Amino acid sequence: MKVGDRHYRSVWAEGPGGPVHIIDQTRLPHAFETRSLDSPEAVAEAIETMRVRGAPLIGVTAAFGVALAMSRDPSDESLARTAGRLAATRPTAVNLAWALARMRTALGALAPDERASAAWFEAQSIADQDVAINEAIGRHGLALIAREHAARGRAVNILTHCNAGWIATVDWGTALAPIYLAHDEGIPVHVWVDETRPRSQGLLTAWELAGHGVPHTLVADNAGGHLMQHGKVDLVLVGADRVTRRGDVANKIGTYLKALAARANDVPFYAAVPTPTIDWEIDDALAGIPIEERSGDEMRVVRGLDGDGRPASVAIAPESTAVANPAFDVTPAELVTGIITEKGVFAAKETALLELFPRERKSEAFLT
Amino acid sequence: MKVGDRHYRSVWAEGPGGPVHIIDQTRLPHAFETRSLDSPEAVAEAIETMRVRGAPLIGVTAAFGVALAMSRDPSDESLARTAGRLAATRPTAVNLAWALARMRTALGALAPDERASAAWFEAQSIADQDVAINEAIGRHGLALIAREHAARGRAVNILTHCNAGWIATVDWGTALAPIYLAHDEGIPVHVWVDETRPRSQGLLTAWELAGHGVPHTLVADNAGGHLMQHGKVDLVLVGADRVTRRGDVANKIGTYLKALAARANDVPFYAAVPTPTIDWEIDDALAGIPIEERSGDEMRVVRGLDGDGRPASVAIAPESTAVANPAFDVTPAELVTGIITEKGVFAAKETALLELFPRERKSEAFLT
Repeated sequence: MKVGDRHYRSVWAEGPGGPVHIIDQTRLPHAFETRSLDSPEAVAEAIETMRVRGAPLIGVTAAFGVALAMSRDPSDESLARTAGRLAATRPTAVNLAWALARMRTALGALAPDERASAAWFEAQSIADQDVAINEAIGRHGLALIAREHAARGRAVNILTHCNAGWIATVDWGTALAPIYLAHDEGIPVHVWVDETRPRSQGLLTAWELAGHGVPHTLVADNAGGHLMQHGKVDLVLVGADRVTRRGDVANKIGTYLKALAARANDVPFYAAVPTPTIDWEIDDALAGIPIEERSGDEMRVVRGLDGDGRPASVAIAPESTAVANPAFDVTPAELVTGIITEKGVFAAKETALLELFPRERKSEAFLT
Repeated sequence: MKVGDRHYRSVWAEGPGGPVHIIDQTRLPHAFETRSLDSPEAVAEAIETMRVRGAPLIGVTAAFGVALAMSRDPSDESLARTAGRLAATRPTAVNLAWALARMRTALGALAPDERASAAWFEAQSIADQDVAINEAIGRHGLALIAREHAARGRAVNILTHCNAGWIATVDWGTALAPIYLAHDEGIPVHVWVDETRPRSQGLLTAWELAGHGVPHTLVADNAGGHLMQHGKVDLVLVGADRVTRRGDVANKIGTYLKALAARANDVPFYAAVPTPTIDWEIDDALAGIPIEERSGDEMRVVRGLDGDGRPASVAIAPESTAVANPAFDVTPAELVTGIITEKGVFAAKETALLELFPRERKSEAFLT
């Protein structure tokens, strides 16, 4: 999508062999800076420190990390070590494991001297596929927004949590893709943007929406229930880091609270995800999905701009204050109206989602 | 309660005639500063800018504001003007209107030259009554915590939202009073402290609890549902700015989301309030309770300490970002396990709460 006059993807390779470029999301929304990554370790660091973030983008960036490794050392040992290192960077997103498995499967079958060029090709394919998938998610979600608009005859108020926009993917976004398409097609939308503490990814969402001219209002994470009680939310649209085959949705911490409020106030709640985000294996989402516990400093230290417009940070709580910082929660399927995928909108039920499974099995190496 | 070695109330008069001293809560938790108020306008400013905050404390401070006015000009016009000015400072808390009505009733019956000394006496009585009420709330709430402890045989995990501690009242607090008493009596408690964006009053709660040695952990407002899903919360205990006779609870924005999660996970949810916080008039809480909309800068600007430990602030979003900032929400009675008052614990039902009404009617001027 556009930043100023120029179209950007959120990750791109300069050419086969690299380097790989990213938008440093730890600097957003206060500064727009790109960063060049020239080693798998640099990629791992970028994922761990959330210079790149968002489940789809993490997977694609990790794939480019494998390609960087293959250009240096295409041995079996290098492939295994790099995949292991990158897999350990973030535990919750299923896309990361999926992208790495796809790279290992594609490259493991080749002789080492064929791996470098194949790795760049494969990583680029994953990136391009992500863009195509997200646009398709956008088309299917657009139909839901259009229906709300037709029913209400006014702007559709959509609440979103965290950032599932174009910078969380390679382009378009997941939850925001339908919103961008609706806006582009002249369907009036207004987005309630949850701040999403502690990392405040809502600020990224607001930055994205402002860049594209989509009307939006930033709110504290606490506000959504009140807005829904007063009829100010027509639709909740979020991304997800993992969806189980039963339709349980693991997404940014706090999503569950919005889903409870949506159900209590008869507001439809949708998660928009590429089908690789569906985890076909886990039975019990609450017990089975690992929830990343991140540093308490994410709560204690807030970054922004000082009075002179320079990046600065303040400590809002002393080091001595104990902090718990679970990064994700699980929204049970019974609170989810539907799952928007690139292949259509499905009920959050095993019977519905399993329709996707055979097609996936045929096309995706990780299921073989 | 104690700050360092010294016992403080959150508001106190130096003597009849004033000045009135407060703890400037806009400086907490980063700095502890008291402030002297010598006019009703200074009191109004302190309430509006939240130098004093918390429904009970606002009421008491406003009463002292009336006393300051009576020392300067005890005329009917001065009394009416001061009460009107102070009533307009914050719209949601019923205590403010209650305290001002009590002052007007007590003083309106007197000749102007008797009003100044009567006003200081009455304001001091309201302050002392607040302390006694809160200690009684603490005793009744303590029984609930003791019961949880007896049933579980381990520390009781209590989640609280916003700050309903001693600095939100004159002393003891409402929601925190039972926690302080439990801790003092050797019942092990651990408090999950919601940050409570946008004003982050949870930092005040953490500061209070640290001062008193009560184990606690700061969490993002988004975390509570996840904690409850995993059995990490035994009890939710909040204050309230207004409780209707039907048991609906108006409290800091986000309380409703925690109540939904508590209900979904079978966690008891209690609001602790002095009986003057009960509004006997409003029928429809959602339609009838005015919800204050505060400045968007509360979201955009975050205060803390810079790297050198000096107070500083950062802007996390540009001025151009639209912000909605409703300060309170309404938790419907059906999500509330009980209301803890100074007169006992009552079901959040009109039939139960009305038991309090006749006693109130006899003792409280505002109902005559």
